[in-house]
Amino acid sequence: MPRAAVMTAPNRPIEVQDLPAPVVEPGAIVLETIFSEVCGTDVHLYHGQLAGVPYPIIPGHVSVGRVVETGGAVRDIDGTLIEVGAIATFLDVHETCHSCWYCLVAKTSTRCPQRKVYGITYSASEGLLGGWSETIYLKPKVKTLLLPASVPPERLIAGGCGLPTAVHAIERAAIGLGDVVAVQGSGPVGLNIAILALLSGAGGVIMLGDPPNRLQTAKEFGVDEVISVSATTAARRVDLVRGLSGGRGADITIEATGVPSAVREGMQMTRDGGRYVIVGQYTDAGEISLNPHTEINKKHLEIRGCWGSDFSHFYRMVGLLARHGERVGWERMISHEYRLDQLNTALDDVAAGRVVKAVVRPNG
Amino acid sequence: MPRAAVMTAPNRPIEVQDLPAPVVEPGAIVLETIFSEVCGTDVHLYHGQLAGVPYPIIPGHVSVGRVVETGGAVRDIDGTLIEVGAIATFLDVHETCHSCWYCLVAKTSTRCPQRKVYGITYSASEGLLGGWSETIYLKPKVKTLLLPASVPPERLIAGGCGLPTAVHAIERAAIGLGDVVAVQGSGPVGLNIAILALLSGAGGVIMLGDPPNRLQTAKEFGVDEVISVSATTAARRVDLVRGLSGGRGADITIEATGVPSAVREGMQMTRDGGRYVIVGQYTDAGEISLNPHTEINKKHLEIRGCWGSDFSHFYRMVGLLARHGERVGWERMISHEYRLDQLNTALDDVAAGRVVKAVVRPNG
Amino acid sequence: MPRAAVMTAPNRPIEVQDLPAPVVEPGAIVLETIFSEVCGTDVHLYHGQLAGVPYPIIPGHVSVGRVVETGGAVRDIDGTLIEVGAIATFLDVHETCHSCWYCLVAKTSTRCPQRKVYGITYSASEGLLGGWSETIYLKPKVKTLLLPASVPPERLIAGGCGLPTAVHAIERAAIGLGDVVAVQGSGPVGLNIAILALLSGAGGVIMLGDPPNRLQTAKEFGVDEVISVSATTAARRVDLVRGLSGGRGADITIEATGVPSAVREGMQMTRDGGRYVIVGQYTDAGEISLNPHTEINKKHLEIRGCWGSDFSHFYRMVGLLARHGERVGWERMISHEYRLDQLNTALDDVAAGRVVKAVVRPNG
Amino acid sequence: MPRAAVMTAPNRPIEVQDLPAPVVEPGAIVLETIFSEVCGTDVHLYHGQLAGVPYPIIPGHVSVGRVVETGGAVRDIDGTLIEVGAIATFLDVHETCHSCWYCLVAKTSTRCPQRKVYGITYSASEGLLGGWSETIYLKPKVKTLLLPASVPPERLIAGGCGLPTAVHAIERAAIGLGDVVAVQGSGPVGLNIAILALLSGAGGVIMLGDPPNRLQTAKEFGVDEVISVSATTAARRVDLVRGLSGGRGADITIEATGVPSAVREGMQMTRDGGRYVIVGQYTDAGEISLNPHTEINKKHLEIRGCWGSDFSHFYRMVGLLARHGERVGWERMISHEYRLDQLNTALDDVAAGRVVKAVVRPNG
Repeated sequence: MPRAAVMTAPNRPIEVQDLPAPVVEPGAIVLETIFSEVCGTDVHLYHGQLAGVPYPIIPGHVSVGRVVETGGAVRDIDGTLIEVGAIATFLDVHETCHSCWYCLVAKTSTRCPQRKVYGITYSASEGLLGGWSETIYLKPKVKTLLLPASVPPERLIAGGCGLPTAVHAIERAAIGLGDVVAVQGSGPVGLNIAILALLSGAGGVIMLGDPPNRLQTAKEFGVDEVISVSATTAARRVDLVRGLSGGRGADITIEATGVPSAVREGMQMTRDGGRYVIVGQYTDAGEISLNPHTEINKKHLEIRGCWGSDFSHFYRMVGLLARHGERVGWERMISHEYRLDQLNTALDDVAAGRVVKAVVRPNG
Repeated sequence: MPRAAVMTAPNRPIEVQDLPAPVVEPGAIVLETIFSEVCGTDVHLYHGQLAGVPYPIIPGHVSVGRVVETGGAVRDIDGTLIEVGAIATFLDVHETCHSCWYCLVAKTSTRCPQRKVYGITYSASEGLLGGWSETIYLKPKVKTLLLPASVPPERLIAGGCGLPTAVHAIERAAIGLGDVVAVQGSGPVGLNIAILALLSGAGGVIMLGDPPNRLQTAKEFGVDEVISVSATTAARRVDLVRGLSGGRGADITIEATGVPSAVREGMQMTRDGGRYVIVGQYTDAGEISLNPHTEINKKHLEIRGCWGSDFSHFYRMVGLLARHGERVGWERMISHEYRLDQLNTALDDVAAGRVVKAVVRPNG
Repeated sequence: MPRAAVMTAPNRPIEVQDLPAPVVEPGAIVLETIFSEVCGTDVHLYHGQLAGVPYPIIPGHVSVGRVVETGGAVRDIDGTLIEVGAIATFLDVHETCHSCWYCLVAKTSTRCPQRKVYGITYSASEGLLGGWSETIYLKPKVKTLLLPASVPPERLIAGGCGLPTAVHAIERAAIGLGDVVAVQGSGPVGLNIAILALLSGAGGVIMLGDPPNRLQTAKEFGVDEVISVSATTAARRVDLVRGLSGGRGADITIEATGVPSAVREGMQMTRDGGRYVIVGQYTDAGEISLNPHTEINKKHLEIRGCWGSDFSHFYRMVGLLARHGERVGWERMISHEYRLDQLNTALDDVAAGRVVKAVVRPNG
Repeated sequence: MPRAAVMTAPNRPIEVQDLPAPVVEPGAIVLETIFSEVCGTDVHLYHGQLAGVPYPIIPGHVSVGRVVETGGAVRDIDGTLIEVGAIATFLDVHETCHSCWYCLVAKTSTRCPQRKVYGITYSASEGLLGGWSETIYLKPKVKTLLLPASVPPERLIAGGCGLPTAVHAIERAAIGLGDVVAVQGSGPVGLNIAILALLSGAGGVIMLGDPPNRLQTAKEFGVDEVISVSATTAARRVDLVRGLSGGRGADITIEATGVPSAVREGMQMTRDGGRYVIVGQYTDAGEISLNPHTEINKKHLEIRGCWGSDFSHFYRMVGLLARHGERVGWERMISHEYRLDQLNTALDDVAAGRVVKAVVRPNG
């Protein structure tokens, strides 16, 4: 019987439980988990801040594992047969309905009301459908990818859920060669956005964040300028970004902070006619004030909310890890590693901002 | 000596003055004014709400007149020779520098710091460079268009400065065939946006505005649904728009109110993954509160500020008047007409919202 | 036992056969067919010009019918319960896999290798999966829409498969307000493209086609100018289009002819920096010559191939019929109506170009 | 009296002549030429293949020099005062009219009929308006940029006219993170496109070209795969590209060959739903055959002609040289350097394909 770390209810200690082994349906895959992760969303789940979560759940949405069984011949999205022993990963968003107005007419599957997500929308009673478990059961049609030989599992999990989110944000940002890009936030999403902005031909990347160790990591990844938010006022940060962009402001600013007040500041540090992508306001952390004349209309600003990610972003993530993995060294982001019985500590550490990237090794 | 209505300083009565006739440079054109207009911007000028205005000025930015003299052979933008007696109009934005970063690199000429605008940025001492005058002097290189024979001057001036602004907003809105479009505001800009949304293939146009006579005008122009803002709460309006759009919210919302609080409401009445164009926040009327999580990020909303207009919008405006003028009957928007000596009254009427469209007939 | 018109093999007479009534699965729907259609694709099927068709087949891809049975509670894409007696239509492209690179990464489901299409990719032995049948069986998950009460079935079938194709082409064309649009071809697709270009705010629509009755139909639908291809040379047509567009050429040209030589001509009649959508080259009718310097590179031309359509186009089609149906009167396109035992004649008539739109009334 | 190399007429030997020193107008700049270039366009000029050229001319369109005099206080496009002794470069396209339909409505200034280009559209009798001269006269309003201190003049001229063309092509290509990009052609334009595709985040760059030394250069610049066109058939090349892109074809192909037959091949090596940018068909080298069904329509292909470049591309070029110059080392492209009296040889060398990049040092 596989062991899993179960979040039984909000604000209750995580419990390691023995759960039934899966009954393998045709088309399904069973993974022995190599890595899963602990991210900000898990902290939100722990604090009961997401609606409609069917506790008890097995958290852990992005994971990587070794194939131990398949329900017949199963292929990955590239069409490759998935064999026992192979290393595989999968999109946590198991299912969008492909039958609703959002999926079919708006073509915005991230807003599909029927989304099912590993580690979030499944009860532990429905099976091993989260990464904080020795075993993960991939239901038929879960969108699976074999990991290229050049991508070690720790690199994939270092990208984690932050990297496909960053791929989506970068797609929305539509960076032109030479554009100056400001990135607000130095957590895993912000760091990944900065890395991808550099890879996309930005003419300069400015990161606004904290604490010093993350800004140092950003510098090591090639970020041109870092600005500590604890050491500056908002007005000063806006001035600094303008000074680094010909006095005009960033061509493109991308928000990845989770702090509502960053939004107004981000508008101010973007140039007239520029673009502002908001990806970090993942939970409701309150309201802000802003001036729609000076900060949107007169600026001729374009603002793009960016929610979640879809398989295309996950697919591109794996390609990025294969192509640039050696040079970028994503695994440098991993600062902490936990076993299944350490996840209460892990949640505390993530909540306190003590980690850059926290990974779980259920069979470690 | 031509007579002109001069705004000598903010909040001072408009004075009708005799001014020197222009000395005609090569490439210049002299118009006998047929119509100019009084718009909300003129009220802002009157109240001193725009920065850097070189009072005394001759207001009136969009105008139409009869050619009485040209400085040699002058052609309009279509390449047609401009002959004495012809009816001509011109872009009020006389000049963008075509030499700065905004003009050349960002290609956002509406944000060129060197913009010169008839009726706003010229002192009366620099010449007859505004429409509230019996005579208008078009400096060399002013972008001029001969009015097609099928467009009576009153139809052009009924479009006025609101129509090219609306053309720009519609361009930013990128309406798809069948999209539900909500228009906030029923002034000249809002009415024109609604008309153009209908012409662009919207699947339904909902106008939120006031007073009843404007909403009645909107219905006559073919708007599907009108909602009185004085008779409803913001929450009710959001519900109504959602009810008219499959419960989701408008595919596209366009703001043309000038009222800051409309911005948050507009975000709320737009569907997830939709688009919101903000064009009406032309002056600083204060701040608003909003929730960046629920109203931008989670909605995957796209917001586009829209500032001013350029020659392409003006050119398309004249084409629209020629093609759809008979059917739309823009001149129905003209509710008041003034002589040069009535412009103090005109400003009061516009400020009080008593007019739909106010025109000036300097030689009437 | 329902009767159906079966295409047993290429170039063999259509046979009316009695076929087994369907066994209704959960989620399935049975329609009593009101109308189906005969289109150019059916002629291609008859001549064996499409690869991989599993003859014998029941042709007829776009259809409309009355619900006679459902497999439990089934809802349409708008979420409405489908009740017996209701009038319904459905996307002929029954299925795209939603599991391949084209569906998930390129997001180009029209190029999914697993597409299944009613009336084309199903053998008659697999069930009543084509419209030339008294009864149509809608498998579970077929994307179904209830017809709005304001849309009579003959209007829907008049749109037929040409209208969603046209919606797709218009989406690719991205017409701006006032753009001059040239449409090559006056068959159902071309006529629908012209209608939609007018509804999208084109500043003028020029149709190049034949025979005179179709051009006359085009004029009745509001097309500004028609040019007979039999009465003109290619060079003359290019000159005429340029003359109707300020000497420059159309802003946007859309090809809907099926004749390869139209492609070069279409490039020539489009202005520098314009856009050319190619939608009519549905089958391989041979090669053409062109000059990549003068006709693409120097022109700074944008060319967009346009293949098939997806549910979003079909959904928008139904909305267009509901909104503009009375004014446009699509049913005027129906020139011929056939019973199941008349389909050999129908194929001859369509092949010979004798019809505008041919419909089938299986229960007539 | 400055010396210049003058092309007196097509197919006549270049002559070095003494020409009058310029009379400096207000706003003008005089440069002592450091470098100019010899490019394929100069060979076309030499062979009389461009229409409307006012021979005798001083060729040389992209150049860099030392400021020796200015007509009063003159600023560069970034607003910096241009002082004597500074190193400056300028856009060869001296002037677009900013008054015609293409400039103002289509916003496609590269198609402005009034374009004036240094080294091409000016007669030697009009002044020192080409780079093959000891002195270059920059007329007032020539769009000038001071060279950043980090960009040595040889790096700028190594980019030459090929780099802004490549910036334009890359802009049209709109590469997404991880896209596989095929580049046809290994001349300066093709090499620069490959470099910029790498900088833009391509997931793989494949170059098809010749001779071996250029392909070797491409490898040194980081191109993933090179394919020799002389060692392969067209069909083989298409197969190879497909093999390098999951069997589908390149996501994006960019043509930079000047060889018409490359165009059909390029369409074939691009995946369904992909994008094809044609930039190399700069002169009329004849016609091609293609199949509009299989190669455009069914592929759902998007094809973008790309003509010339504008100041935005030139501006971004200088930024790219400043940011990536050390790493990329553009100056490695310079294979030959010539004095003014060696330009007949230079034209022969360029025509024969013996050079990668040929530069002129008029004061050398």
